[in-house]
Amino acid sequence: MSAGRLTERALIGIARRRAGDVLPGVRVGIGDDCAVLEPRAGAPLLATTDLLVEDVHFRRRWTSPADLGWKSLAVNLSDIAAMGGRPRWALVALACPAETSLEEVEAFFGGALALASAHDVVLVGGDTSASPSGWIVNVTLLGEAATAPLLRSTARVGDVLAVTGPLGRSAAGLTLLELPAPPPAVPADASTDVRAAHLRPRPRLREGQWLAAAGGVTAMIDLSDGLAADVAHIAEESRVGARVDLPRLPVDESTRCVARALDRDPLAWATGGGEDYELLLACDSHALDRLTAGLALATGAVLSPIGEIVERKEGVRFVGAGGRDVQVAPGFEHFVASR
Amino acid sequence: MSAGRLTERALIGIARRRAGDVLPGVRVGIGDDCAVLEPRAGAPLLATTDLLVEDVHFRRRWTSPADLGWKSLAVNLSDIAAMGGRPRWALVALACPAETSLEEVEAFFGGALALASAHDVVLVGGDTSASPSGWIVNVTLLGEAATAPLLRSTARVGDVLAVTGPLGRSAAGLTLLELPAPPPAVPADASTDVRAAHLRPRPRLREGQWLAAAGGVTAMIDLSDGLAADVAHIAEESRVGARVDLPRLPVDESTRCVARALDRDPLAWATGGGEDYELLLACDSHALDRLTAGLALATGAVLSPIGEIVERKEGVRFVGAGGRDVQVAPGFEHFVASR
Repeated sequence: MSAGRLTERALIGIARRRAGDVLPGVRVGIGDDCAVLEPRAGAPLLATTDLLVEDVHFRRRWTSPADLGWKSLAVNLSDIAAMGGRPRWALVALACPAETSLEEVEAFFGGALALASAHDVVLVGGDTSASPSGWIVNVTLLGEAATAPLLRSTARVGDVLAVTGPLGRSAAGLTLLELPAPPPAVPADASTDVRAAHLRPRPRLREGQWLAAAGGVTAMIDLSDGLAADVAHIAEESRVGARVDLPRLPVDESTRCVARALDRDPLAWATGGGEDYELLLACDSHALDRLTAGLALATGAVLSPIGEIVERKEGVRFVGAGGRDVQVAPGFEHFVASR
Repeated sequence: MSAGRLTERALIGIARRRAGDVLPGVRVGIGDDCAVLEPRAGAPLLATTDLLVEDVHFRRRWTSPADLGWKSLAVNLSDIAAMGGRPRWALVALACPAETSLEEVEAFFGGALALASAHDVVLVGGDTSASPSGWIVNVTLLGEAATAPLLRSTARVGDVLAVTGPLGRSAAGLTLLELPAPPPAVPADASTDVRAAHLRPRPRLREGQWLAAAGGVTAMIDLSDGLAADVAHIAEESRVGARVDLPRLPVDESTRCVARALDRDPLAWATGGGEDYELLLACDSHALDRLTAGLALATGAVLSPIGEIVERKEGVRFVGAGGRDVQVAPGFEHFVASR
């Protein structure tokens, strides 16, 4: 192998070394035709997969290989979190251009494994390939539902809609990252904060598990496509309508600060931005206070009620400060799709 | 949605409609954050993933969307076959250029689902995305090991090496497909046969399951990287050496016919070509006759002994007709890597 030249075996070697020794629940890890896993008897198995493509989901100008590794795992962890599950095993497929260095590949796996090990997830398999253009990552994550998994399709009319944290941070970060240079009007602290929210999202696993076990939550989804799109997903799958009160959306000071400096509307980021990876849930209105207090105690997360599940015929509505319906832009559009 | 314009929801709709109704072992399929599956209690879970990238693994000039769907599932089914397992659930991630038509996406899923349903595999999830350049497909396949799964790492010195079918067919097909036009010297029947072997490989699931249950097989792998590379995988993982007798390699008449017409060496295709998706196994020498007769009776496949597992210090050797060692080219190299 010439210096710096990537081969499939070199990539497998990196992935395998980084995956560590054999661990509980893994009979055979990387290096055979399949991973051989030992699920807990009786536990429903959760499976999710996400494909990240350069210049669609990220740009290498502002995404380091370690950030990409982290995020490719984070977006899948968030799907497990949305069902209240426990993540266990990851399969990572990576394609990169011939000129990619081994150091970059090491850094990619370093980022992915840092987040994986924080959640006791073992890398058990994958695939590696050349790519004729940019980086391509596909992560499949398997997990177990500790209790009955929370679905998108089970919200009921009268339920409260609530989110586990502030919205629009990731979109504020993306807006800054896409600018040719950091604008001097944006304070460094706020800029660092929202860019990190976009590059290294923290999936709400503990929150999801606590909420699934607490009782009273009727439906849940993670906020990946943007609030407007994800409320619509719950409404469609549950065959209900929804009303979101825009003044109640939690938007933190970093996001507001960046919005002011750039003369942008933080509510547009909060509703249409996507990739916040907070959880959106529907719950029995009588359970809201108990859930809010319990979640804060158990995880530190602040549950914010933002609206209500209504009859299907009312559709999905966003209501502004004056009580009037507001048109919100559709959810997150990828770079390529929005051209 | 404008006519022919692909959106994620449109793709999900196609995948979902094609996946059919809820089936045994699937509590929640496409449409939620994760699939919720019900593995058989006590059965080891098998997981494998493969990434196919346009102009690395296939060219659209000679791969129809339906062929691509078929093959993306076939290569994963073959990994399950190599462990003697039973495939159950597939997750399919697809990225395609903005100009892709809905008909092409329908055809892709049609090809994948045709092979999936032939093996009782249910499509339970996936992801869809735009792509800035070519088509990208990642399939993750989950299955169950009916008995103890067959590994690469358990071959023993003295075992016979054998394959479940002819080698070099896929490489012969690829050679023809890569030519600008079909050469008149190649008979149409042979050409059609080997091109189909490359485009629509038939994973050896029944053979793998039978061999795993029969006893006497000590190690198994599917021939995806090419015989030379895959023998080396078994040798490395089992910490043994191997001797392959080139005159014993099964090469069928279609492959020989194409090789003659193109003045190529069919043994080079059989050893280095890759993608035949036959099974390569090591077995107790006393079990060979029983396995050969039983496999033929149960599945029609012809088991061909091709060599022997030897001491590690002897390395991996390929021996020609005169009894002399022959250097064989390394395994399958992707288009991009071999530039």
